[in-house]
Amino acid sequence: MSTDHSFKGRDLIDTQEWSLEDLETVFQLSSDLKRRFKIGEPHETLKNKTFFMVFYATSTRTRNSFEAAMTQLGGHAHFLETKTMRIGDPGAPEEIKDTVKVLERYGHGIGVRTYTPNYGEGERLIREYAKQASIPVVSMESDAYHPCQALADLLTIREKVPNVGRKKYVQAWAYSPSARRVPAVPQSNICLTTRYGMDVVYARPKEFTLDPKIIEQAKQNAEESGGTFTETDDLKGAFEGADVIYMRNHATLDYGKIGTEAAQALIDKYKDWTCTADLMDLTDKKSIFMHCLPADRGHEVTSEVMDGPHSAIYDEAENRLHVQKAVLSLVM
Amino acid sequence: MSTDHSFKGRDLIDTQEWSLEDLETVFQLSSDLKRRFKIGEPHETLKNKTFFMVFYATSTRTRNSFEAAMTQLGGHAHFLETKTMRIGDPGAPEEIKDTVKVLERYGHGIGVRTYTPNYGEGERLIREYAKQASIPVVSMESDAYHPCQALADLLTIREKVPNVGRKKYVQAWAYSPSARRVPAVPQSNICLTTRYGMDVVYARPKEFTLDPKIIEQAKQNAEESGGTFTETDDLKGAFEGADVIYMRNHATLDYGKIGTEAAQALIDKYKDWTCTADLMDLTDKKSIFMHCLPADRGHEVTSEVMDGPHSAIYDEAENRLHVQKAVLSLVM
Amino acid sequence: MSTDHSFKGRDLIDTQEWSLEDLETVFQLSSDLKRRFKIGEPHETLKNKTFFMVFYATSTRTRNSFEAAMTQLGGHAHFLETKTMRIGDPGAPEEIKDTVKVLERYGHGIGVRTYTPNYGEGERLIREYAKQASIPVVSMESDAYHPCQALADLLTIREKVPNVGRKKYVQAWAYSPSARRVPAVPQSNICLTTRYGMDVVYARPKEFTLDPKIIEQAKQNAEESGGTFTETDDLKGAFEGADVIYMRNHATLDYGKIGTEAAQALIDKYKDWTCTADLMDLTDKKSIFMHCLPADRGHEVTSEVMDGPHSAIYDEAENRLHVQKAVLSLVM
Repeated sequence: MSTDHSFKGRDLIDTQEWSLEDLETVFQLSSDLKRRFKIGEPHETLKNKTFFMVFYATSTRTRNSFEAAMTQLGGHAHFLETKTMRIGDPGAPEEIKDTVKVLERYGHGIGVRTYTPNYGEGERLIREYAKQASIPVVSMESDAYHPCQALADLLTIREKVPNVGRKKYVQAWAYSPSARRVPAVPQSNICLTTRYGMDVVYARPKEFTLDPKIIEQAKQNAEESGGTFTETDDLKGAFEGADVIYMRNHATLDYGKIGTEAAQALIDKYKDWTCTADLMDLTDKKSIFMHCLPADRGHEVTSEVMDGPHSAIYDEAENRLHVQKAVLSLVM
Repeated sequence: MSTDHSFKGRDLIDTQEWSLEDLETVFQLSSDLKRRFKIGEPHETLKNKTFFMVFYATSTRTRNSFEAAMTQLGGHAHFLETKTMRIGDPGAPEEIKDTVKVLERYGHGIGVRTYTPNYGEGERLIREYAKQASIPVVSMESDAYHPCQALADLLTIREKVPNVGRKKYVQAWAYSPSARRVPAVPQSNICLTTRYGMDVVYARPKEFTLDPKIIEQAKQNAEESGGTFTETDDLKGAFEGADVIYMRNHATLDYGKIGTEAAQALIDKYKDWTCTADLMDLTDKKSIFMHCLPADRGHEVTSEVMDGPHSAIYDEAENRLHVQKAVLSLVM
Repeated sequence: MSTDHSFKGRDLIDTQEWSLEDLETVFQLSSDLKRRFKIGEPHETLKNKTFFMVFYATSTRTRNSFEAAMTQLGGHAHFLETKTMRIGDPGAPEEIKDTVKVLERYGHGIGVRTYTPNYGEGERLIREYAKQASIPVVSMESDAYHPCQALADLLTIREKVPNVGRKKYVQAWAYSPSARRVPAVPQSNICLTTRYGMDVVYARPKEFTLDPKIIEQAKQNAEESGGTFTETDDLKGAFEGADVIYMRNHATLDYGKIGTEAAQALIDKYKDWTCTADLMDLTDKKSIFMHCLPADRGHEVTSEVMDGPHSAIYDEAENRLHVQKAVLSLVM
């Protein structure tokens, strides 16, 4: 946890590593930049500066929100697929150290997105970038954390659910026959929401638990903030009276160990874990439905919910832009 | 047909949907921006704004003219290949709606290029983008229309052939053993030129006809404008006294139905449909030769014509830049 | 050799084609722009202008240094992979002429990187771009030359080894089991350093000689500048008292002729051609170790040297940015 008064050069890999005071600065600045964007007021905080986006995996929101962010801030983001770079050279791949120590001479920040077959490796990879770089490294999602999504999500909640303390936030697993999403979003979000005193419920079939260290962190956060954290496999119970529903598919941490067929059979046991309008009827009248997208419509959630009155999904996606502009403006 | 006095937010998918008055604004602005570019006068009409270029297919002119256009206008264009995006995810592809409703939060306009195996699907795909988007959608060529090319082409004709009314414009099919170009350019061009009172001749082997609705539109346009529209398979006759020759390969609408071998045999029946200097000698002394490029030199047209005194091909390509800057400046 | 007083429109393919006076302008401007970058002073010399980067091969430093350079200069660089362009279309590939004559209408400069199986073809390809283009063409490395690397390298040497005349510069071949680097860097560098009166030694196993025309050029340069040029297969002797060590793998010009297995056997004969700390101990106390990266650590050079006190590798990489900004500012 940095106690420095300056944000310049700081990494963002896990929101837990930023103090509540620092995060408050991010949220206030996000809202300020959001208003300035809406009225077309220039805010070129990163004029002529460069942000390198290193992608080991595909993306829509992340790439486009960061690239548009840099344009709005007066700079430019490089869309770098590792397969077009020397670190992806099959003959003699360049080491991360050498790639990073060169990029830091040309530009001002590095973003990395990576998913890896073995849980934890993606996270370690991003930390290797951060260790080598003298310029800030921002995680654009690893297998463990998605800090910018978590910040966008909390900003959205704060905009729509006033006084978030003791409000009921439900993070729920959702069925999809084919999507194999990493657990970064639920993991980041239960950690961040518990810091803000929310009553956080993690609802999932018992096999779809998260990283035990993350669960432990969420519990500790709740204790410190005066909120609560509970796990359950009772989906309906979780929905009852909820203020926020965040329901989305993710893989278990050990599909790899059990094999492809067993994994598919396991997933297919829970075909009824779809977010429907009937389920939403159990929540508070003013509750919001959240999903970080992409969504497997009809499986994870029905279109009736996605396009219905509770849905906050596009406002949530928009806030990626604003929080990222705030973070980049602060650290670069 | 829009009757709105404002251009902001308007789509450009088929030039037919824009009034002659609106198009006149586009042409005047294109010429103005062209002059300003030539003298190096800044014209940052889209400062810090983002245009998303969604490519389902390869491109040289379209990508580079739009990307350079946005740089000149002070903004930035994202080069997006669908295979790097979530809509191209083989596991659980994201719906167009969700992609569009997110992009519209980050930026200010969307371009789409798509060719599809079945004629008409590409057009429907682009209209789906437009239906979902609250920001303007500009077709960067579907299987049916290429509106920006048509505008660039008419600007070029107006620059080089004063008083276009009743001037003879020949759109001709050309031989290529391997190119399988979509009919978007001839279709867009016979529709646009007939609106300007030109005597439009469409010359092609009888099997290479165009979409019957397009032919019907061209006839109706000619009637309204005081021009004419005729079809012929007499290539030499078409060239006689022509003011503009636009000769280029395109596929029939039903290669798919007849099979690959039959398609090749059909194409190879018309090896003599190459634009040669001898053919150009039949045209008016001051006539221009047009081609939207890429060209299959030696098959569609000889290098003698491509690089000869009638050729307007590079001026035509340049005008892509200027009309697109005008359109983007108006609608974004 | 240009004698023109203006740099606008000039190509940079081989530094030999630029006079010493012109190069001095490049070096002075590089240092000036470097200082302005360090203090954050704007220097938008290419405001709203476009540089097209045409890549036939992968890259990290080249793409990122040029793209960041254009952002810093107020313009934008297009990252163009030929496989996404019409020149890469397998059906009917567009000719270089047509691609170039279109790009020159949209933007202000073209960079090309290409490696080819047969030595010399890449160089010819870049010269074809230059022949067709009315805007400047900058080589981003062919199989024969890497002019921007050579300029960055000499700038680095001048910064770290005052009064370069008669200083000992060693260009050495290095072992790598799998990297097959083109000889562009050693070839460009022995030509440029010999023009500055250095005592240049080219150390390599006898089979790894360079293009005979290049060797001839280096000798002639040395004669004119008052320096020397020698070849040797005595690696230790070369290191003795050296001021600059530049040690890096490259392929012979005729791997193609001898076949893959024979090539591997040839390479493996020279496993001891690794730059080690022991070897560096033979050099002058203040000597620098250079490598253009990517490096095959442990084979071409040990990490002890790469990360040790002599290493200038990241400063060298940084100078790519500054010399390229100088060149682009002058020619575009």
